[in-house]
Amino acid sequence: MQAYKLVSRQYCSQDTIIKIPTPGGPLCIGAGYLTIIAGPCAVESRDTFLEMAGLLKSMGANVLRGGLFKPRTSPYSFKGLGSQGLKIMAEARELTGMPVITEIMDVRDIDLLYETVDILQVGSRNMQNYTLLEELGRLDKPVLLKRGLSATIEEWLLAAEYILNGGNNKVIFCERGIRTFEPWTRNTVDIGAIPLIKQLSHLPVLVDPSHATGRWKMVSPVAKAAVAAGADGIMVEVHQSPEQALSDGKQSLTPENFQILYKQVIALAELEHREIL
Amino acid sequence: MQAYKLVSRQYCSQDTIIKIPTPGGPLCIGAGYLTIIAGPCAVESRDTFLEMAGLLKSMGANVLRGGLFKPRTSPYSFKGLGSQGLKIMAEARELTGMPVITEIMDVRDIDLLYETVDILQVGSRNMQNYTLLEELGRLDKPVLLKRGLSATIEEWLLAAEYILNGGNNKVIFCERGIRTFEPWTRNTVDIGAIPLIKQLSHLPVLVDPSHATGRWKMVSPVAKAAVAAGADGIMVEVHQSPEQALSDGKQSLTPENFQILYKQVIALAELEHREIL
Amino acid sequence: MQAYKLVSRQYCSQDTIIKIPTPGGPLCIGAGYLTIIAGPCAVESRDTFLEMAGLLKSMGANVLRGGLFKPRTSPYSFKGLGSQGLKIMAEARELTGMPVITEIMDVRDIDLLYETVDILQVGSRNMQNYTLLEELGRLDKPVLLKRGLSATIEEWLLAAEYILNGGNNKVIFCERGIRTFEPWTRNTVDIGAIPLIKQLSHLPVLVDPSHATGRWKMVSPVAKAAVAAGADGIMVEVHQSPEQALSDGKQSLTPENFQILYKQVIALAELEHREIL
Amino acid sequence: MQAYKLVSRQYCSQDTIIKIPTPGGPLCIGAGYLTIIAGPCAVESRDTFLEMAGLLKSMGANVLRGGLFKPRTSPYSFKGLGSQGLKIMAEARELTGMPVITEIMDVRDIDLLYETVDILQVGSRNMQNYTLLEELGRLDKPVLLKRGLSATIEEWLLAAEYILNGGNNKVIFCERGIRTFEPWTRNTVDIGAIPLIKQLSHLPVLVDPSHATGRWKMVSPVAKAAVAAGADGIMVEVHQSPEQALSDGKQSLTPENFQILYKQVIALAELEHREIL
Repeated sequence: MQAYKLVSRQYCSQDTIIKIPTPGGPLCIGAGYLTIIAGPCAVESRDTFLEMAGLLKSMGANVLRGGLFKPRTSPYSFKGLGSQGLKIMAEARELTGMPVITEIMDVRDIDLLYETVDILQVGSRNMQNYTLLEELGRLDKPVLLKRGLSATIEEWLLAAEYILNGGNNKVIFCERGIRTFEPWTRNTVDIGAIPLIKQLSHLPVLVDPSHATGRWKMVSPVAKAAVAAGADGIMVEVHQSPEQALSDGKQSLTPENFQILYKQVIALAELEHREIL
Repeated sequence: MQAYKLVSRQYCSQDTIIKIPTPGGPLCIGAGYLTIIAGPCAVESRDTFLEMAGLLKSMGANVLRGGLFKPRTSPYSFKGLGSQGLKIMAEARELTGMPVITEIMDVRDIDLLYETVDILQVGSRNMQNYTLLEELGRLDKPVLLKRGLSATIEEWLLAAEYILNGGNNKVIFCERGIRTFEPWTRNTVDIGAIPLIKQLSHLPVLVDPSHATGRWKMVSPVAKAAVAAGADGIMVEVHQSPEQALSDGKQSLTPENFQILYKQVIALAELEHREIL
Repeated sequence: MQAYKLVSRQYCSQDTIIKIPTPGGPLCIGAGYLTIIAGPCAVESRDTFLEMAGLLKSMGANVLRGGLFKPRTSPYSFKGLGSQGLKIMAEARELTGMPVITEIMDVRDIDLLYETVDILQVGSRNMQNYTLLEELGRLDKPVLLKRGLSATIEEWLLAAEYILNGGNNKVIFCERGIRTFEPWTRNTVDIGAIPLIKQLSHLPVLVDPSHATGRWKMVSPVAKAAVAAGADGIMVEVHQSPEQALSDGKQSLTPENFQILYKQVIALAELEHREIL
Repeated sequence: MQAYKLVSRQYCSQDTIIKIPTPGGPLCIGAGYLTIIAGPCAVESRDTFLEMAGLLKSMGANVLRGGLFKPRTSPYSFKGLGSQGLKIMAEARELTGMPVITEIMDVRDIDLLYETVDILQVGSRNMQNYTLLEELGRLDKPVLLKRGLSATIEEWLLAAEYILNGGNNKVIFCERGIRTFEPWTRNTVDIGAIPLIKQLSHLPVLVDPSHATGRWKMVSPVAKAAVAAGADGIMVEVHQSPEQALSDGKQSLTPENFQILYKQVIALAELEHREIL
């Protein structure tokens, strides 16, 4: 007997569509819709974030990402603007009408983020932070659940089960690479996880090629591979000046490269007659 | 340049000794002292826990372990007795005079656990739960920091750095196996991590052969290997009836087998002229 | 300084095209050409292999695969028909005009295979069998070099360097999945290896989604991902009755499913304006 | 049903003892005997090898190691002295009376090596080179079978099964570290593999802490751990001037450090009442 239940295909044979209200009508995630999430690794300043939001909106991105509370391996690294950055994010959301996503690390931040943020992201380090998962299960808010660096598919499904078991079935999986022995890429994208999750679960699954590869030149080929393999979308990092980014510059696309990538994945999705928003 | 500082050998060339007050005088961890932590995976009932505490005390164990809040991969598994179990743990501590250790998963449990618990354990799933690490850094309480399933040595040192950076330098590392491709053991003990941590850091390092192997027959050989490699102690699971344990029965020793193991590791430690408490 | 030289992009900035003579003109591998290699895991009988060859030819496959000497983890498993099967393979090659590929495990088999076989395959277990690589370096015959189960990209490039250093520059890389902790797929396809190899080397790179996933339902999504990521082709296992195959049945496509897959990867390749043969 | 048979404990409940004739009487490997194999990574010159052989003999080493045919990741690295070195090895064997061990990579070298070499070593890269295993199975000569870098315990047992199935039951396992994500050690010693092999098989198992760690400072702690965990012996690299070694200098002990290590492992073995030769 499998240990997960509510997330399974057996429990719900139809693809779940997660609808996010926007001024222009609901954004649908899952069931063949293609979702493009883009933005800088972290919200760094009001000017650059608002400019980026406008650029991405005009280029077709569906959701705006930006880190406020950054989990960093070293306690001495830049950790994000926190609640200061949230105001900037709210402004960008207001201006562009784009839904926003940011990572939550602390259950005590739920009240702060709930109002403004459309999708709460659980990072790979917290995939098995059950305290956090249980609190998110009590909300009526979409949760993007990144795969832990060494989480098996089953552990990932069970982490989602924690959220659904609490009453919140708006979970979006996000493959972001697993840890292997290969030193030349930051992580190894488990491309097979995409069809496997689609077979085992009714929930949407995205791919984050930026964190997975750690090299911007690989973002585009891996993003295309993800869509070809059936992913419900991608989440990519974009920065005006990647070389000056406060975090993750090496893996960030310029807006120009994002534009090229966007057109390529749309063409791929159209080839499969998928829904483009 | 290395990213960690306060945990490094360069910062403090002498081995740190962590002293835990007990009715019979301080228990020393680190710097050649051999520490034996033992107890059931979880506190299951008052009777069994008090009996086990008495047994382990009489056999020579230095610290009593018992899970109250259990991180479980599935939301449907037994998750521990929580605050109910804490009273039992307090009673066992009072009766035997042994310091106690239990896992903390939620920053909101600090107040509850602070008074009774002598060592707060951070489990492998939470090794990079920075919210938790930062709060533990503000306490004056020893923290046992288990290595994440796929954490590099450097990430582990940096997780400890979070705690020391907050002002709490009472950190004890605990190797509990890393995730590899090998399916016949639950995890793979990285025995080389012991001498490596001793070279790189002044903090103590223990080994948990129970979780690392997942098979009780392997606990004893791996515990002996740990002590021979220079570990400052071991943490093992002991249960009166392993086959009836609510969790981790397969990897639990019986009290009889613990007694045999205890004598063997003491003999090994004496061979190296180490301090036995 | 990088340790590899002849295989590098620096040494040869243009994509190498490997030409294999066929009755209908040379088959080109690399440089944007899309190559589809298909066939059963092993040559099992004359009738089934000739039938399969005809089917695959009619469906558009470019190269016919079939194992004669099978490396098997257990000494008690079916190891292939050996030289008996070679005659069948020669007949299928003659009948269809398709080039054939089979694995070579033993340097002493070179003379036997040289005449009939168009591409000699080095399996993942032998990627660092330098004795074999050196002998293949002395031939004027294309070699398909599978990545070892836990080979880094650099080790893979260096294995190819052995062959080029001997004078044979007709090497085709083949990603077939690496070994990770994930138990639900046979191996984990390193999709990022495709763009990485294309950046670092001038040699072609294919993907084998059959061995990599071990599940036929995942073959098609992963094959499409490979082509979208820029692979020069795919190698897939096809069997008339997968459930009766003497080896690798679980990962084999039926001819019907191969036909569907073929059309999908061709559509993907056309979208990128690639050369179809 | 397990796939291996002849190597299993079920097939032979008693520990196999492999006896190697020496001028001073047979050397026993397995069943509690402690075997110390030592020597340089490669035979580099007559003078240094003969000197080292004398030193090691006087310090108590049981078997002399030295590479003649070195498997190297790059085709441009030093590959050993080959048959030239064999004469030096023969001379050292004659002078000291110590049995010698060297790696065999090519089935065509069996005749060359058979006379002089007492134990033929199969390196980790060739653990699944079945051509080689089958030929070694036809000999009456001990084989030391190193574990492949990413070989499971079962695959390792099955590789040995190939040799026993051919009629040669003189197989000695050697754990030399597996490949994991940890970058600070060359490989990760799977210390749990020692008790596991002892439970599952009747054949001896050694540990090579030099290749496994890649750092000489870790060789001694890991060697001691191996003996404490029940290994039948260790194989270590020793070099007069590690910093000038043509290969593997970083992991080589000086003769002085070998002497210290030797005494420590003997003391450990005596504590367990094991047989010392």
